[in-house]
Amino acid sequence: MKKITGSFCDWRGKVKEKSLLNQSRFYKYKGNFSWNNIKKEKYKQSGNEWKNIVRQTLIGNHGETTKFHVRYFEISAGGYSSFEKHRHEHVVIGLNGEGICIVGKKKYHIKFLDIIYIKPNEPHQLRNPFEKPFGFLCIVNSRRDKPVIIP
Amino acid sequence: MKKITGSFCDWRGKVKEKSLLNQSRFYKYKGNFSWNNIKKEKYKQSGNEWKNIVRQTLIGNHGETTKFHVRYFEISAGGYSSFEKHRHEHVVIGLNGEGICIVGKKKYHIKFLDIIYIKPNEPHQLRNPFEKPFGFLCIVNSRRDKPVIIP
Repeated sequence: MKKITGSFCDWRGKVKEKSLLNQSRFYKYKGNFSWNNIKKEKYKQSGNEWKNIVRQTLIGNHGETTKFHVRYFEISAGGYSSFEKHRHEHVVIGLNGEGICIVGKKKYHIKFLDIIYIKPNEPHQLRNPFEKPFGFLCIVNSRRDKPVIIP
Repeated sequence: MKKITGSFCDWRGKVKEKSLLNQSRFYKYKGNFSWNNIKKEKYKQSGNEWKNIVRQTLIGNHGETTKFHVRYFEISAGGYSSFEKHRHEHVVIGLNGEGICIVGKKKYHIKFLDIIYIKPNEPHQLRNPFEKPFGFLCIVNSRRDKPVIIP
């Protein structure tokens, strides 16, 4: 199987600042789900099967060599992620507000610190049908396969 | 380099419930930094260079095949982790109360959602000199080397 080092769910290829390779770092929390030196970015660079999501890569593009990446996603009211599946697993931990996580044929209501483990190749989607933002950590392997969008 | 699949920082060998291999799971947060179906365990099975720490393995011993493990550690008043170093990296995210993280020659005050990335072979220790519990997520590679305790 071909190994792909990338940044899927958010596919944009490898992003590393080599000058920062393996430096210990402190990211101070600024409140309102923002951190010093962490950028707010698009969830994905293309596609129209998702809506109203912003991503912050907390661990993964500042020269860390961890086998995992840690991202914070925030879905504003009415938004949703791609309904998709892929071989790599997901760990989702609720942080801000509440939302819905579809996992296979199940539907979970996610609130603060609720945790979901999504197994390989399980169709899944995060949704925010509520009025306030829904934010969560999403931890994934650093090497991962490209998602398949489910129509 | 020899690859070691283990459970270091917390060294007890490999713990997997094979019957649960790769099943999607939901861990409901019960409040007070406890989750349904997650056990409270000792930080380490031996040693006297640490004090007053409880560990919960959130992701890593229920048959997940992620390249990472997610743990929640809670240090009660006056407690501390081993002062140690190892090749594997740490990501620490503050969740409950406040504490101190020693990273090399630096000392950080950790509060809610502050994030620390600890590079390979950096001496480090978590401490709680405060009166309330200090709890944090600690994310590590699933394959990791044995820590060296620093006297």
